[in-house]
This record gives sequence, structure tokens and C-alpha cells, in this order.
Amino acid sequence: MPDTPEDPLDDNAAAVSPEAVIDLLGALAYGELVAFDRLAADARLAPTLAGRAALAGMAAAEMGHYERLVGRIRELGSDPERAMEPFIVPVDAFHEQTKPSIWLEGLVKAYVGDGFAADFYREIATLLDPVTQKLVLDSLADTGQADFAIREVRAAIAADPVLAGRLALWARRLVGEALSQAQRVTAERDSLTELIIGGSGDLSGVLAMFKRITRAHGDRMTALGLSS
Amino acid sequence: MPDTPEDPLDDNAAAVSPEAVIDLLGALAYGELVAFDRLAADARLAPTLAGRAALAGMAAAEMGHYERLVGRIRELGSDPERAMEPFIVPVDAFHEQTKPSIWLEGLVKAYVGDGFAADFYREIATLLDPVTQKLVLDSLADTGQADFAIREVRAAIAADPVLAGRLALWARRLVGEALSQAQRVTAERDSLTELIIGGSGDLSGVLAMFKRITRAHGDRMTALGLSS
Repeated sequence: MPDTPEDPLDDNAAAVSPEAVIDLLGALAYGELVAFDRLAADARLAPTLAGRAALAGMAAAEMGHYERLVGRIRELGSDPERAMEPFIVPVDAFHEQTKPSIWLEGLVKAYVGDGFAADFYREIATLLDPVTQKLVLDSLADTGQADFAIREVRAAIAADPVLAGRLALWARRLVGEALSQAQRVTAERDSLTELIIGGSGDLSGVLAMFKRITRAHGDRMTALGLSS
Repeated sequence: MPDTPEDPLDDNAAAVSPEAVIDLLGALAYGELVAFDRLAADARLAPTLAGRAALAGMAAAEMGHYERLVGRIRELGSDPERAMEPFIVPVDAFHEQTKPSIWLEGLVKAYVGDGFAADFYREIATLLDPVTQKLVLDSLADTGQADFAIREVRAAIAADPVLAGRLALWARRLVGEALSQAQRVTAERDSLTELIIGGSGDLSGVLAMFKRITRAHGDRMTALGLSS
């Protein structure tokens, strides 16, 4: 560890292994490809042409993020397909286990599930070099899903209050499944585990990070009108 | 018809009813939404991660076209959803009748089918006001599908020559189905029929137009290594 922390970003960056950065970019890039896929599939379930076009537009925005992440992986001298490879099985398993059976479940998943993942990546981003950090934060920028989901879910619950219980249960399942897959990934990728623990300082730092993520999750549930 | 044709574009534009322009933009916009949908679904069939990302990127580009077409419909004072509405049934019916059962059929459809439709729209575009004309031509610009399809299809036929016959038959079915749906649309939308016949001058002009479109179709089949 360098002992002259004039620039906390560069200082942190020095502590992150190049392998961990590629892992992170690979996980994010594959996540974008899957987000595209899912939003495109959800677009087909949309009850109106306007809803369909809105979701398709969001899917297209995810591909813009994907291109930038893949570009950065190449810039850093790695192969994007190899960087994504380790994350295909866990990410696909997560989505296989959490297939929305109705339109509203898809919206909750897009908002609550992606919000949870984005918070986690944002925490890690603070440890990266400025260029990669900016890229990661940009790729996590909301493509319009949040407002759209909040509006549609609140309207649906207002029309049929029984939905609130069903959707709250669904959100809990999403988070449980996400944590179980994240555990699998970190168990296999030492570089990512080191990044998270090293970046947080120690285990109490890791716990504080999870507390922040959990609080933000609760805020999203409240915004949807659901109990977390 | 104005008799001072200093500017052939404006002259033609004057002959086109505003209703026909909205019809055309509505048909194109709905076509983009469906193209997005289809490319996104094909991306899921892709045998490699690179192929999947390539098709998802093309799908995203279609949404860029969609946004511009819908923007123009609004500029001209019409409602995009209402403009698209008459084309939902025939366009969906076409795709329902021509669902690719393998990855290569999807590629042939993206190249041959979309190329055929694009040529038709390009012929009509020559009759529009300059702003709408440019927009239509831009929205028909190839998003990378052509090269991608030619490369993949030729490689597949080289590896298994029996495929050539199957894919040639498939392409013939695509064109037959497209013509049958186009006939349905023009039978219902007088403004479009008038646009085509009025723009071509007379029936021999319409025949010349179809000859040009058919020749370009043959060129595409040859590029794929298929007999038309």
C-alpha cells in the first residue's frame, strides 16, 4: 500500500489487481447483455404499444453501456468474451430462477433487482481508477426504468391492492436469489473477494457496505408501495 | 399537379397526401419495433457470445431509427400509436408465418426479407418531402446485418452444402409471404395505393419499380450463395 494518499482514487486504484478490474468489467458487460435480453423479452409482454416501445428503448440503452464496457476491456488488453465467460453460469442461473410470470413482476425485477446490483457495483466502483470508475458509474445510470416501474406498479396496486403482497414476496425472492448467486461468484473468483474485503478495509467495512445497500433497497420498495 | 417543377422533390411532395406520409411513417415505425423484437429474439439463438452481442447491437440500432420516425410523426401533428395501429396485424401476421426455426433462417430473413422491404420503402421515399425522405432513408440504413448475414450464411453453406437448397426455399417463402401481406395492406389503405401508383406515374411505372426491386433481391440471394 502506498503511504502518500494525496489522491484517494489513485491510492485505491493501486490496491486493486488488474485481474479484479477485468472481472468486474466482465461481470458488468455480461449483465448488460442479459439486461438487454430481459428488457427485450419484457417489451413483448407489455400491454400497450407505448409500454412496448419504452421497454425496447431501455433495452437499446443497455447495449450502449455494453459497448463501452467491452471497449474498456479491450483497452486494458483483455478479451471481452473471456472476461464475461466466468459470469455466464451464475447470471443465467439467477435469471432462470427468477423468471417473471406477469408483466408487473418483470417491472419489479427491473427496478428492485437491478437497483440492488447497481448499488453493489457502485460501492466497488469507488475503488477503481478514475477512467474505469466513470465508465462503471455511467453504465449503471438509470435508463428510465425506475420512473417507469414506479408509475406502473403503483397504478396497478391502486387498482388491485392484493397485488402488493404478491409483489413484495417476489421482491424478497429476487434479493435472496441474487445473494445466493453472488456468493457463488465470490467463492470462485478470489480477485473479486479480495477487492471487496480489501476495499472495505476489513469485515466491519464490508458489513457497513451491506447496510448501505440494504437501506437503499428498502427505499426502493417503499417507492413502489411495497413493504420490504 | 403543380406545373412548375423547378424542384422535383417539392413537386412530388405536393402530390403526396399528408395521410399517406403518416401511413408510411407509421408502417416503418412499427416495422422497426418488430425488427428490434426479432433481432433481440435471434440474439438469444446465437451460437456464440460475439454473435449474440452483434445481433443485440443491431437491435439497439433499430430503436434509434424508431425514435426518429416517431419523432417525425409527432412533428407532423399525428399520434404515433394511431399511425402504427393499421400495420400491427399485417406485420405481425407476416412474422407469425415466417418464424425461423434455425439461426441461419433468422439471418436469411434479416438480410433478404428486410432488404426487400427496404428497397420498397426507398422507392416510395423518392416521392416525399426532403426532411421525411432523409429520415426514411436513414432509418433504412443497414445496421450491420448485411455483412454479418452474408459471412455467416456463406460459411455455413461451405461447411454443409445441403443447406443451400433449404435456405433458398426459405427465402422464396419469405418473399411470397411479404407480397401477400403487402397486398392486404394496400387493399385497406387507399392513401398508400394512390401514393404508389401516383408516384410511379402509371401501371407501367409500378411494373418498372417491381422489376428494380426484384433485381436487387436476386443480387442479395447471389451474395448469400443461394439461387433465387
